[in-house]
Amino acid sequence: MSRIGVFGGMGPSATVDFLDKLVKLTPAARDQDHIPIVVACLPHIHDRSRSILGVGPDPLPQLLLGIDFLNESGVGVVAIPCNSSHHWYQQMSERSRVPILHIAEACVAAIPNSDTAEVRVAVLATRGALASGFYQRALSARGVVFLVPDPEITQSRIDSCIQEIKAGELEAGGKSLAQALQEIARQGATAAIMGCTEIPIAARYAGSTSLQLIDSSLELARASVGYALERGWNRVGWDS
Amino acid sequence: MSRIGVFGGMGPSATVDFLDKLVKLTPAARDQDHIPIVVACLPHIHDRSRSILGVGPDPLPQLLLGIDFLNESGVGVVAIPCNSSHHWYQQMSERSRVPILHIAEACVAAIPNSDTAEVRVAVLATRGALASGFYQRALSARGVVFLVPDPEITQSRIDSCIQEIKAGELEAGGKSLAQALQEIARQGATAAIMGCTEIPIAARYAGSTSLQLIDSSLELARASVGYALERGWNRVGWDS
Repeated sequence: MSRIGVFGGMGPSATVDFLDKLVKLTPAARDQDHIPIVVACLPHIHDRSRSILGVGPDPLPQLLLGIDFLNESGVGVVAIPCNSSHHWYQQMSERSRVPILHIAEACVAAIPNSDTAEVRVAVLATRGALASGFYQRALSARGVVFLVPDPEITQSRIDSCIQEIKAGELEAGGKSLAQALQEIARQGATAAIMGCTEIPIAARYAGSTSLQLIDSSLELARASVGYALERGWNRVGWDS
Repeated sequence: MSRIGVFGGMGPSATVDFLDKLVKLTPAARDQDHIPIVVACLPHIHDRSRSILGVGPDPLPQLLLGIDFLNESGVGVVAIPCNSSHHWYQQMSERSRVPILHIAEACVAAIPNSDTAEVRVAVLATRGALASGFYQRALSARGVVFLVPDPEITQSRIDSCIQEIKAGELEAGGKSLAQALQEIARQGATAAIMGCTEIPIAARYAGSTSLQLIDSSLELARASVGYALERGWNRVGWDS
């Protein structure tokens, strides 16, 4: 049970980025200092955002099969580097024998207490994740003022950004994100949650911004590595 | 069975690099165009090179458990982005119900026929992989002239490079590799096989070189994606 289970493929590039963060966050001088990980990279799961918006098939049965697969693979915790899939967090958690770390909770927890009264956080996510509302609920619970992008201009840029990164068009994704960041800064945001795991990839191509960027993928990776190190999973043989 | 099985963790950064290559080599405009992948990232496997050299414990029992795990995970082929582990290729292949792609064969096959008479290829690998000799045998079988680094100076740079990348010291790894490349070019090499999957990571930090670099990780990724695409694994639902 001393393995991190990663439910990936939503999308594949974001999964690679998340694994890179897991490896880099682990203090290690040699292979044997690292944490065992099992990754199910299952890209054929139905589009999460479209389903939440009522215009695509329900991915829940596929999500539950992925959770089953990881549970059968001897993992001790599950991380899902896809924000929109957390619309089904409760159903997945009920199915899983091991805990599932919640990406939005990890992300909102990363806002320093000293900042909660001062920041005005824009939530950058899929339209489905915004309709689901789990980021808004987590931010409200911490008393953080937030804004969601206007659907016509800014959210359309975010939609393009996510689609471009999924298609491997990194420069285009960076440009779309830069336009969205400029717009939300103009609307009074001081920080932005990159609440879709494609967005941190785009951010590398977006140039500089005055906004504080909070990376949901990085925060989930921090929570995952922290969970594993607390339990010494880096020190036990994976076959034990 | 329509999944690529990746036996990783040897080392973890090289596994992330390999997965990045798999994703980028797959022609895809959206998540659902990608190939399902199961990754066992098992970093606690005993040092392969040290075992081949007779100064460390035998990793074979652990390697076979990893092969068993992937076979039980519904994969249709196995790729192992660790060159030294291929010392035990035959034993792993005999244990596996599904084919294991051979990293050195994929790598040597990537040398164009037109080049085999002209190149003089240096084999950059761990001391264990060189002692095992599977690269030398594959190159001889294709009639390619090769050289192995002198053990004192050049191989020591390669050893440092690999160790530095495993420890996350990317700039240092690049510098060690650059010194080794300079030395083997002086000794008459026209090309170099990066026959340890940490070396391509170091190459990004090594500056320019006159040598043609052949990336074992990239060639294994090409072979893996080719195997999956020929069989349409990008088009079938992972749950089918």
